[in-house]
Amino acid sequence: MKADRIHNFNPGPAALPLTVLEEIQENLLDFQGSGMSITEISHRAREFDDVINDAVDRTKRLLNLDDKFEVLFIQGGASLQFCMIPMNFLPEGRSADYVDTGTWSTKAIKEAELQGKSIQVVASSAAKNYSYIPKNIAFNSDAAFVHLTSNNTIKGTQWAEFPDTKSVPIICDMSSDMMSRPLDVEKFGMLYAGAQKNVGPAGVCLVIIRKDLLDWIPDTVPTMLKYTTFAAKNSLYNTPPCFAVYTVQLVLKWLEETIGGLENMAAINQDKAQLLYGFMDGGEFYRATAQADSRSMMNVTFRLPNEDLEKQFVEQALANGLGGLKGHRSVGGCRASIYNAVSLEAVEALVGFMKTFEKANIE
Amino acid sequence: MKADRIHNFNPGPAALPLTVLEEIQENLLDFQGSGMSITEISHRAREFDDVINDAVDRTKRLLNLDDKFEVLFIQGGASLQFCMIPMNFLPEGRSADYVDTGTWSTKAIKEAELQGKSIQVVASSAAKNYSYIPKNIAFNSDAAFVHLTSNNTIKGTQWAEFPDTKSVPIICDMSSDMMSRPLDVEKFGMLYAGAQKNVGPAGVCLVIIRKDLLDWIPDTVPTMLKYTTFAAKNSLYNTPPCFAVYTVQLVLKWLEETIGGLENMAAINQDKAQLLYGFMDGGEFYRATAQADSRSMMNVTFRLPNEDLEKQFVEQALANGLGGLKGHRSVGGCRASIYNAVSLEAVEALVGFMKTFEKANIE
Repeated sequence: MKADRIHNFNPGPAALPLTVLEEIQENLLDFQGSGMSITEISHRAREFDDVINDAVDRTKRLLNLDDKFEVLFIQGGASLQFCMIPMNFLPEGRSADYVDTGTWSTKAIKEAELQGKSIQVVASSAAKNYSYIPKNIAFNSDAAFVHLTSNNTIKGTQWAEFPDTKSVPIICDMSSDMMSRPLDVEKFGMLYAGAQKNVGPAGVCLVIIRKDLLDWIPDTVPTMLKYTTFAAKNSLYNTPPCFAVYTVQLVLKWLEETIGGLENMAAINQDKAQLLYGFMDGGEFYRATAQADSRSMMNVTFRLPNEDLEKQFVEQALANGLGGLKGHRSVGGCRASIYNAVSLEAVEALVGFMKTFEKANIE
Repeated sequence: MKADRIHNFNPGPAALPLTVLEEIQENLLDFQGSGMSITEISHRAREFDDVINDAVDRTKRLLNLDDKFEVLFIQGGASLQFCMIPMNFLPEGRSADYVDTGTWSTKAIKEAELQGKSIQVVASSAAKNYSYIPKNIAFNSDAAFVHLTSNNTIKGTQWAEFPDTKSVPIICDMSSDMMSRPLDVEKFGMLYAGAQKNVGPAGVCLVIIRKDLLDWIPDTVPTMLKYTTFAAKNSLYNTPPCFAVYTVQLVLKWLEETIGGLENMAAINQDKAQLLYGFMDGGEFYRATAQADSRSMMNVTFRLPNEDLEKQFVEQALANGLGGLKGHRSVGGCRASIYNAVSLEAVEALVGFMKTFEKANIE
């Protein structure tokens, strides 16, 4: 770690690999010998074509996607996807199943309802404060799709395995765990992820869509809100968020070439999560809030004995070079987001600080 | 000009002030002593609040906006605005007037029609290949709004003055001339601009909206597609495109503090355009394509005696450090985009090259 950088446990926007930031910095005034910044070159230039094509190719390789899938870059974050999904895939007469596992699932459900679409919430963990992932769900076999949120950033839960929905495709918000582990893509009709957690900076949403779903889309959907527009033009119908796509490309390159792919990444992420949960489970001062079988490998939510100690913990951690540990304002407590770019060393430093803080504050 | 940088006449994404790029570069690993990059800090952090609030304040000062207006940052470019505008402001029973001055106007019209909205194209310069800006237009006094495109990037035309629409508010796509000259904002209900020409990098659209128009918006509009969502949360309902907003902030700071405001900027832009048009009008080798009274101060479109010479011109210009001079693929020819960040020296260098090229290629 450079002396002036901190360990960054922010929930998103979040840590990026330092080597990625250094490469951006080095080339910011002259991209690939063009004499222009990446922020100044045309999105129709060969240089940018190489960037976006490489980002698409790396996504396909990392996730083992075959030609059934399109890789798209869309602005507006996962929140815009919440409205685009029912707009594109729920024409009159069709219905979809949604599972409610917390804030982001709930928002996705609300956007479908706002459009007067027919949906059914087939499972919810709301009654237990979203502290677990539902099991044994009875999905409707005639649903157009099943919508899931793979990782719940705020509540600290994650689907360890995805349910069997038979022939019904899963559409999954993977904003906070995309590219953190290998995937069996055969279950999915669409995956999407706001980039600002594991994949890049804020300002672009990675959308992976099975091509046959594109045939469902009504002609009446506005041009910028239909997936076919992006699929037909390699995400270049209009000017894309060039800097964000470029940063995503570099993060994917780091994942492939430095980390060595998603199997390796998942192993590192397991080690990080195990270290943190294992430490907390070994004592009573820190208490992980999610049920053990539903714990997130990305967002570790926890409480201290009281709110006053939590406030001191967050402040003193920052003073010790450990940032972003405050829980989401809607739930309080503490949270360590340990996305791909957060190193094992950072988690070790956090656990070291947690031990010191506990010792200083236990009676 | 640094040795490895070229003069950048790209139509968008386009040149940014070098000092802005240098400031981004210098701070990329550690923003404001946070120990994190601007791409890694939370959009809820004090540091980012300062960025977005400063961008809003500078926009208001530069354009002399009073408290009647909101300044918003929205993703998706002007193309997403084309569909949001009728969705927000054309409920059943209302109609709007559109003026068609080229590609982008035409796209805005198509998006309203796609939604089955009632609109009337009250003027069009299509019959003369969009080479001029229509005059003496009969607007409908009961229209909800009048939609204009202030500068036509592809055809090289620009409204020198905006028409009198009486009490009907103008909604204006200013993507390619926002912040290039002072404005009488009293005529406008809404202004919008994809940032990637005069205001910043691709990935954010600056939207300035008169607050009373927010009352028109139906509750049924999806959350991420209604202006009220952005107005209620200072554009922070969901994660904004942080890097793009930050760059916009720095460009606006440059406009205020280095250039000295929009009066000064307009004078410089006039000088640049005058130099280029004046040179072409003085000879026969280069021919400006727009009618003289409709010429754009931002995008100077021109032809050479034949297409073969145009191809050589673009190639040799690039070899001489003058980039981005090819005309839009839909019209051919040449185009010099001379946005705010393109200096008078760059235009002088271009005219110098044009003289040399003419001498070498004239019989």
